[in-house]
Amino acid sequence: MLAVERRSVMELLQQTLAKIGDVDQKARAAAQKRLDSLTKPPGSLGVLEEIALQLAAIQGRVIPQVDQKVVMIMAADHGVVEAGVSAFPQEVTVQMVHNILNHGAAINVLSKQANARVVITDVGIKGDPIRHPDLQQHKVRAGTRNMCKEAAMSEAEAIAAIEVGIEMVEREIDRGANLIATGEMGIGNTTASSAILAAFCGSDIINITGRGTGLNDSGLQVKQAVIKKALEINRPDPSLPLDVLHKVGGLEIAALTGVILGAAARRVAVVVDGFISAVAALVAYKISPLCVHYMLASHLSQEPGHRIALDEMGLQPSLYLDLRLGEGTGAVLAFHLVEAAVRIISEMATFEEAGISNQE
Amino acid sequence: MLAVERRSVMELLQQTLAKIGDVDQKARAAAQKRLDSLTKPPGSLGVLEEIALQLAAIQGRVIPQVDQKVVMIMAADHGVVEAGVSAFPQEVTVQMVHNILNHGAAINVLSKQANARVVITDVGIKGDPIRHPDLQQHKVRAGTRNMCKEAAMSEAEAIAAIEVGIEMVEREIDRGANLIATGEMGIGNTTASSAILAAFCGSDIINITGRGTGLNDSGLQVKQAVIKKALEINRPDPSLPLDVLHKVGGLEIAALTGVILGAAARRVAVVVDGFISAVAALVAYKISPLCVHYMLASHLSQEPGHRIALDEMGLQPSLYLDLRLGEGTGAVLAFHLVEAAVRIISEMATFEEAGISNQE
Repeated sequence: MLAVERRSVMELLQQTLAKIGDVDQKARAAAQKRLDSLTKPPGSLGVLEEIALQLAAIQGRVIPQVDQKVVMIMAADHGVVEAGVSAFPQEVTVQMVHNILNHGAAINVLSKQANARVVITDVGIKGDPIRHPDLQQHKVRAGTRNMCKEAAMSEAEAIAAIEVGIEMVEREIDRGANLIATGEMGIGNTTASSAILAAFCGSDIINITGRGTGLNDSGLQVKQAVIKKALEINRPDPSLPLDVLHKVGGLEIAALTGVILGAAARRVAVVVDGFISAVAALVAYKISPLCVHYMLASHLSQEPGHRIALDEMGLQPSLYLDLRLGEGTGAVLAFHLVEAAVRIISEMATFEEAGISNQE
Repeated sequence: MLAVERRSVMELLQQTLAKIGDVDQKARAAAQKRLDSLTKPPGSLGVLEEIALQLAAIQGRVIPQVDQKVVMIMAADHGVVEAGVSAFPQEVTVQMVHNILNHGAAINVLSKQANARVVITDVGIKGDPIRHPDLQQHKVRAGTRNMCKEAAMSEAEAIAAIEVGIEMVEREIDRGANLIATGEMGIGNTTASSAILAAFCGSDIINITGRGTGLNDSGLQVKQAVIKKALEINRPDPSLPLDVLHKVGGLEIAALTGVILGAAARRVAVVVDGFISAVAALVAYKISPLCVHYMLASHLSQEPGHRIALDEMGLQPSLYLDLRLGEGTGAVLAFHLVEAAVRIISEMATFEEAGISNQE
């Protein structure tokens, strides 16, 4: 799939793609056998059983481990914000990064509850470098260009951002992470996400463009016009995922694509957050379809494109909470469900242990 | 609403109904103000914000407390099981009660994860008394009668079972419980629940009857015919909730109705589990409509009647997990969302604290 783009693909991305393999069907079958021996009607825990089976297949063992949870937040700015596509000013990206670093944001609160670590990376914030010991500094460029006028970034920059994601997730996996969530912060990034989705799916821009963090009706119309113009100016080729990503994407979106590819290459499950994360996952899926086996959907947001992106990959969300915040909030809430699935397969009594009559 | 039934209503139920009042709109407004001051776009945490507002209104304070969680499991048997309406034999009720008492069931595993206590009550199990120090003994009768032939129980027995629920939840609230989940164990209880729902809503029995814990096609047809016959024999009056409950209900369903009424009377929130719990909640709502303000929906199950029962009360489920186990499993999973909502309103930074630009 990356054939015509091979010249510019850098080594880390190529190596990562080469490592992404199928999941372990034998472990899945063994996990199914154990689930059916537990004191409940077969299949009666629905999606929790599905999650347990998927994790068993990913990790290659009947009782998976998810005790080291990390949410990988990628932050960057978007040149297209100058066209008036967000309800919030661009400086909010930097301000919210500070808020996350100071543990004041929603993602901090929810991660603390879920016993998950927050790792936040500057992959392309505009302005002066943010000085904070906990911020991972991997700025590829200081925000994208305005995609209404030109490509948001070069293909080399998009690949560099993907590789930041790969490097960051590999570092966390090396430190023991066994469950990853995707998160992002970037004023304007639902605009880039809708543009990517429209490029891939050829969908009507009206139907896949939402209000982001809270646009009014006229703001929404501006956003739709901006996406239309960006696609006309850039003409991304839907058969070339990197072409779409660099022309109408974002640096944090590319980095999340890297997080997902990197986790899949290392056989670690990734919980996909909201619309922006789902679009990053879709880019990963278009680059390497096998990586979908390592993804778990979390919630279904208010953004109309979210369902479309998940449907493209055959992923089903479990949480219907009308979230539209990003940061990884929905994915971290879903960590509780993933942990529940693992506890079910590891801690419940079997029919034999409990001396219970099985189905007639 | 209980006027014509007043002769037989016992004192505890009447006292409880008299105590159920409106929630605190001032506390809700103050909670809304605080939510809008937090570092997120207004409303962007969707249902989590709704839950925080509801809890503030129930508890009458901006920062609610949900640190003492209890799942109240009511267990009983159903005479109608002799008609062949369940995939599992009747003795599984007793066996699963033992399993819960021995911490081997799904509800034990999920309650441990959610830091919730499990309280299980025998309100009508068939057979000899179960001897276990942790089982609450409040048997009203040893299983219902076969509702295909006669009323499942007398009205006095239904009221007694409701009052068991009230007493049990009051005891837990006296001990400090500030968040309750409903749960149940009773082979055959989806049949009784579907019959109650059909009596109230006049819905087509075919559309509201599901496979319970796992009936095959012929079993499902038997179940539908049984419900039809039970309604024909008993002719419950949909305008009299206790008439419906005693004729085609169940002892554990009645007890859960009591749990909900009792919690509402004490201004404590109740998370409603699956189909059976939703039907028990619907009975409570028909008896005292105000009690709906104290209910939170949890999941949407595979039982087709579940959505209908929730819609009758205007409740929206958040978890789409295709569960069909009962025990309180879905409600206890939703405890994580309730706790998340409370953490959000209590722990997030405000725009002022974080020095962040608010919406343009």
